[in-house]
Amino acid sequence: MLNFELHNPTRIVFGRETIGRINELVPSGARALVLYGGESARRNGVLGQVHEALGSRVVFEFGGIEPNPSFETLMGAVEMVRDKKLDFLLAVGGGSVIDGAKFVAAAAAYDGDPWRIMETHGAAVTQAVPFGAVLTLPATGSEMNRGAVITRKSTQAKLVFSSPHVYPRFSILDPTMTYTLPSRQLANGLVDAFTHVMEQYLTYPVDARVQDRISEGLLQTLVEIAPQVLTPDENYEARANLMWSATLALNGLIAAGVPEDWSTHMIGHELTALHGIEHARTLATVLPAAMLVRRDAKRARLLQYAERVWNITEGSEAERIDAAIAATRGFFESLGVPTHLRDYGVGAEHIDAVIAQLEAHGMTALGERQGVTLDVSRRILEASL
Amino acid sequence: MLNFELHNPTRIVFGRETIGRINELVPSGARALVLYGGESARRNGVLGQVHEALGSRVVFEFGGIEPNPSFETLMGAVEMVRDKKLDFLLAVGGGSVIDGAKFVAAAAAYDGDPWRIMETHGAAVTQAVPFGAVLTLPATGSEMNRGAVITRKSTQAKLVFSSPHVYPRFSILDPTMTYTLPSRQLANGLVDAFTHVMEQYLTYPVDARVQDRISEGLLQTLVEIAPQVLTPDENYEARANLMWSATLALNGLIAAGVPEDWSTHMIGHELTALHGIEHARTLATVLPAAMLVRRDAKRARLLQYAERVWNITEGSEAERIDAAIAATRGFFESLGVPTHLRDYGVGAEHIDAVIAQLEAHGMTALGERQGVTLDVSRRILEASL
Repeated sequence: MLNFELHNPTRIVFGRETIGRINELVPSGARALVLYGGESARRNGVLGQVHEALGSRVVFEFGGIEPNPSFETLMGAVEMVRDKKLDFLLAVGGGSVIDGAKFVAAAAAYDGDPWRIMETHGAAVTQAVPFGAVLTLPATGSEMNRGAVITRKSTQAKLVFSSPHVYPRFSILDPTMTYTLPSRQLANGLVDAFTHVMEQYLTYPVDARVQDRISEGLLQTLVEIAPQVLTPDENYEARANLMWSATLALNGLIAAGVPEDWSTHMIGHELTALHGIEHARTLATVLPAAMLVRRDAKRARLLQYAERVWNITEGSEAERIDAAIAATRGFFESLGVPTHLRDYGVGAEHIDAVIAQLEAHGMTALGERQGVTLDVSRRILEASL
Repeated sequence: MLNFELHNPTRIVFGRETIGRINELVPSGARALVLYGGESARRNGVLGQVHEALGSRVVFEFGGIEPNPSFETLMGAVEMVRDKKLDFLLAVGGGSVIDGAKFVAAAAAYDGDPWRIMETHGAAVTQAVPFGAVLTLPATGSEMNRGAVITRKSTQAKLVFSSPHVYPRFSILDPTMTYTLPSRQLANGLVDAFTHVMEQYLTYPVDARVQDRISEGLLQTLVEIAPQVLTPDENYEARANLMWSATLALNGLIAAGVPEDWSTHMIGHELTALHGIEHARTLATVLPAAMLVRRDAKRARLLQYAERVWNITEGSEAERIDAAIAATRGFFESLGVPTHLRDYGVGAEHIDAVIAQLEAHGMTALGERQGVTLDVSRRILEASL
């Protein structure tokens, strides 16, 4: 097991009819900014419930935070926080809105060019406006972690920042809020959470037995619940298991004491930035290809994954690894998520541009042992076609 | 899945050579009290390392905190904190010392009779002196939770209190600190952690799939590592897995969203208070008996436990449950921990007194559905003989 430090101060309030807790969790004298994405948050009543819980506090709204939240949009919220002297943010939405709130929280308190926050991957952050979240879309885990992904539209740069100052003070997780989600977003959430676990699990063994078991348990759970999640029924238990699994998939717990990879995400970010493919769908194309290309480096873990997650115990090592990769691809396809770049209109002719962006963003030595050079990324992209 | 709230602000610093981090984690101007148990903490060098890390801070020491820390002893530390105007506590030891530090932290800041803290099970606590911990004995999970068990020697009352104000600010978990432990204490730690998981797992199903998987993963890990933990070799990986498993076994994670039992612990506490049996050893006698007596109430979970933890899939339901109970007892015995009260000199003639103490402490409706009446506790004790 590797040395680690784990400190996650986010308070999770989980379950039915918990949104009213906002009234206790937001300081009574707060001047609040409610951040949200599309108008569905108003139509389905969540924004109304938030306002009701905030009661007589001074509350402003900032809507229109897009999927893959942009620096350009978010700077509008930063100005609002400064102009109106607001002191608490409340993100109402999925990972994009919560990521956006993290950037706004850090940028509004930052003295200097806020893009420095992204260029330093968060190292420049020394304080942030406090904020909470109401999660409506289980997928990214942003509701209980310190990271955010922000896109600068003008340069097509999609970058990550992380800071201990941007843990949400609290996150409300009410599974019933997922009832109105389209199945496409639920499928994306399953793929996103699954891949988050894989990036922290599929590296090399360090005898971190509990972390392995937790990761495998999350993967098994996501596979088991997927059919119930994707039915249109209001299946509370399936949605609750999805919501909690997606949070645990990226809250620091399974990363504690183990190597991490994240090359699939970094390659996927460039595909989103250049081609507008939804985040989860980039992961569904890159992950199986990365497993294939890097099967030697990941041999021991692939065999453990095959056995414990998919119960694949027959055949040679190579056959079991092939079967595990096929099972992974098959799982994503079973959710209605295509797993080849060609399904999204991306061909071999587009690979050079992706590689150029990876190089421009310093992504030249990715992976658990920094072995994913630009050449390896190219082979992964070729295998994703 | 049940509604839940999860907020655990303790910072874990895990791994080799981490004790020096105390210098950053304790406020630089702190007036500190180092709490410890026996003189082994000085002999094996841990106290010296703590003093070195604390540098030029004002530091007092309070030693002699016993296993099953007593109100009477701890009040000496409370007086010291008040007299010397100390403002940070550092617990160096196992669960007893950390539990003791929690009581001292709450009592020193409490205006009134400190025993009220125990009588109210912590509800009376509104503030506490901040404290950190250096864990030397993996077992209780106290290093990352808000609970403590304190004994009043004068009345043989062993009571639990819990408060959000007594989470450790940080805990240093260095597995090498377990190298000097006697195998008896390591075996007790394995039993204690195993039983903590069981009290949160072996109840009734609520479709909390990830929590189930994590609990099962912890149980499997404890079983797998036990032989390596009990060898005298300095096996870092085995000790690291024990240390992290014991912490995760009782830090709120696996309790989130599920029913809990704790009747084995409550009965065990009375056995310790009346007969001086080590805590873990009371659990090893009570748990298998509780599984036997309550097999109908716990049928679904016992079958899942049998299959997933012990790979017991053959035979009738009754046979599988019998086999799972036998496997549990066999595991404890394999650690050198006897599992019958007669092994500790306790006979049928002592049961009345245990029941009387349970009644005196209000423990008349224990368990996940409050079904463990005094009569059920009596049957469990009879089955423990």
